[in-house]
Amino acid sequence: MCSSRSDPVPELPAPLSLGIDIGGSKVAAGVVNAEGEVLEELRRATPGRDARAVEAVIGELVHELEGRHRIDSVGIGAAGWMDLPGSTVVFSPHLAWRDEPLRQNLEATLHRPVLVTNDADAAAWAEWRFGAGRGRDRMVMLTLGTGIGGALVIDGRVERGSFGMAGEFGHQIIMPGGHRCECGNRGCWEQYASGNALGREGRELARKHSPMAAGLLAAANGRPKNITGSVVTALALEGEATAQELVAEVGEWLGLGIANLAAALDPALFVIGGGLSAAGELLLDPTRRAYLRNLTGRGYRQEALIMKAQLGPSAGLVGAADLARTQQRPLERYRR
Amino acid sequence: MCSSRSDPVPELPAPLSLGIDIGGSKVAAGVVNAEGEVLEELRRATPGRDARAVEAVIGELVHELEGRHRIDSVGIGAAGWMDLPGSTVVFSPHLAWRDEPLRQNLEATLHRPVLVTNDADAAAWAEWRFGAGRGRDRMVMLTLGTGIGGALVIDGRVERGSFGMAGEFGHQIIMPGGHRCECGNRGCWEQYASGNALGREGRELARKHSPMAAGLLAAANGRPKNITGSVVTALALEGEATAQELVAEVGEWLGLGIANLAAALDPALFVIGGGLSAAGELLLDPTRRAYLRNLTGRGYRQEALIMKAQLGPSAGLVGAADLARTQQRPLERYRR
Repeated sequence: MCSSRSDPVPELPAPLSLGIDIGGSKVAAGVVNAEGEVLEELRRATPGRDARAVEAVIGELVHELEGRHRIDSVGIGAAGWMDLPGSTVVFSPHLAWRDEPLRQNLEATLHRPVLVTNDADAAAWAEWRFGAGRGRDRMVMLTLGTGIGGALVIDGRVERGSFGMAGEFGHQIIMPGGHRCECGNRGCWEQYASGNALGREGRELARKHSPMAAGLLAAANGRPKNITGSVVTALALEGEATAQELVAEVGEWLGLGIANLAAALDPALFVIGGGLSAAGELLLDPTRRAYLRNLTGRGYRQEALIMKAQLGPSAGLVGAADLARTQQRPLERYRR
Repeated sequence: MCSSRSDPVPELPAPLSLGIDIGGSKVAAGVVNAEGEVLEELRRATPGRDARAVEAVIGELVHELEGRHRIDSVGIGAAGWMDLPGSTVVFSPHLAWRDEPLRQNLEATLHRPVLVTNDADAAAWAEWRFGAGRGRDRMVMLTLGTGIGGALVIDGRVERGSFGMAGEFGHQIIMPGGHRCECGNRGCWEQYASGNALGREGRELARKHSPMAAGLLAAANGRPKNITGSVVTALALEGEATAQELVAEVGEWLGLGIANLAAALDPALFVIGGGLSAAGELLLDPTRRAYLRNLTGRGYRQEALIMKAQLGPSAGLVGAADLARTQQRPLERYRR
């Protein structure tokens, strides 16, 4: 509505946002610009399960980065279930938090407003804005690590449900009476299709003294308990046959669950991120085969693509930063 | 913007819409007003699985009702999966249709534009507009009959996915390797939580010559094959103990699947309709118990309500009629 100004306006640096990703094993903080680029990133180990200690680490990270960048907004993605206003982590299976007033505590620590969201929602937002999901009307993101982080983007909006808990696809029960899950149930999908599941299968094979586990044990100094999802993934990428079989098995469970989500949600795209996605086609090829074999109505419908995430382990902090930067603006601006 | 008119305006009858519900066993047609009331309803048996014969029956029903009512719009809900534009039934497990150009054929038969949608979407729309779902931001409707008709309403819009196939919750696999489904897969939820599942369990019990099946057999003239879901439901309502057990078992599977949908979608409300919902609390009480026992994060989250549908077997035609009547108007008008 204003007329153009004739006075020269000093050029201000583009606004930067600080994104923080709180996971079960690490806290990452990064300075992110409006194009989703990370200008600087810092990482710390998650200091146990005590929320106060985590908040202190976040305070240190923010203080350090604020000393070197002009930060306009701060967004946090945490591995827990947020209430709808984004103030309280009501339940976090992997951090062992319950009813944790994270936003209030962080605002007191940081002396500024912060946006708090679920880490999987943050990662999905990043992939939709800057990564594999660009231009898709509907996208499901699955972040495979300790468990399955899930999020659904519909028409430029992360769908959070009536109470803020939507997207917990990893806790859909796909094997009644199956493996026990951190959430308390049995048979949750993430007990079959996650980095943790891959590690568990490797350890079980080793403890059975199966000759097939020789390669796994050699990589773990002969100790089954050292066999983690990361160890098996790395071995698979080196060509070790048993590790590749285990990754493929996890891919089959992943594809089955994706077929279930396609039945329910029919998105155009599934994006697979998280540590386990480093296995690439060793994981995604069996995933796609199992998806197509289990998809209801197969051969008579359009099929969603299954793609690897593009933003890597920084997706969570990039998404948290971008959500914080854009939250005050009409969402329509970000629709495609 | 217009000033009020001083000339008297002749009062026109409120516009009426004709809704048609094509199921595996019956075709129902009804004249519906803007309040969702059915002014007249006709029913015919579905004439086998031939699409031409079904279209002919629809032609007769519309012709008869048009003779007695001023119809402004026609909407069809069919037990099949529509493409996104609503022109083709791409797959119908229970009608055995594939790539059926239903809208084009009906427009040729009826000489007018028609709206074609999925029957479960239509029923959900009716319950959201006029029934159990009024005032809820998010609602999942499950119509329990031959299978599970599913639909999700988000903020006054039926969520259809990227390609039109969303809401097929009944084909989520909850028991890998389980019962074979009409869709071709094994272990689909609707093989455990539907009227057909209830009938199958009753027949199996009778064929095992279990003394527990005496009541079921007596109601079926001693012939196991006569034991259907409706027979078991009616017996349960009369107080027969085995029938009540079987209904409760189906309720437990229903509750498990609802817990899965709550994990994924977190709606405020689940509405249970279809023939099996006639069992009322005999079904819904065990459903709610199983839902609460299997809900991930239970005790730390808001829980969705599980309610019986309010519009009965006419919900599908009411919803199809109302979608046809309102489809040309901005959806925002119907947001609450």
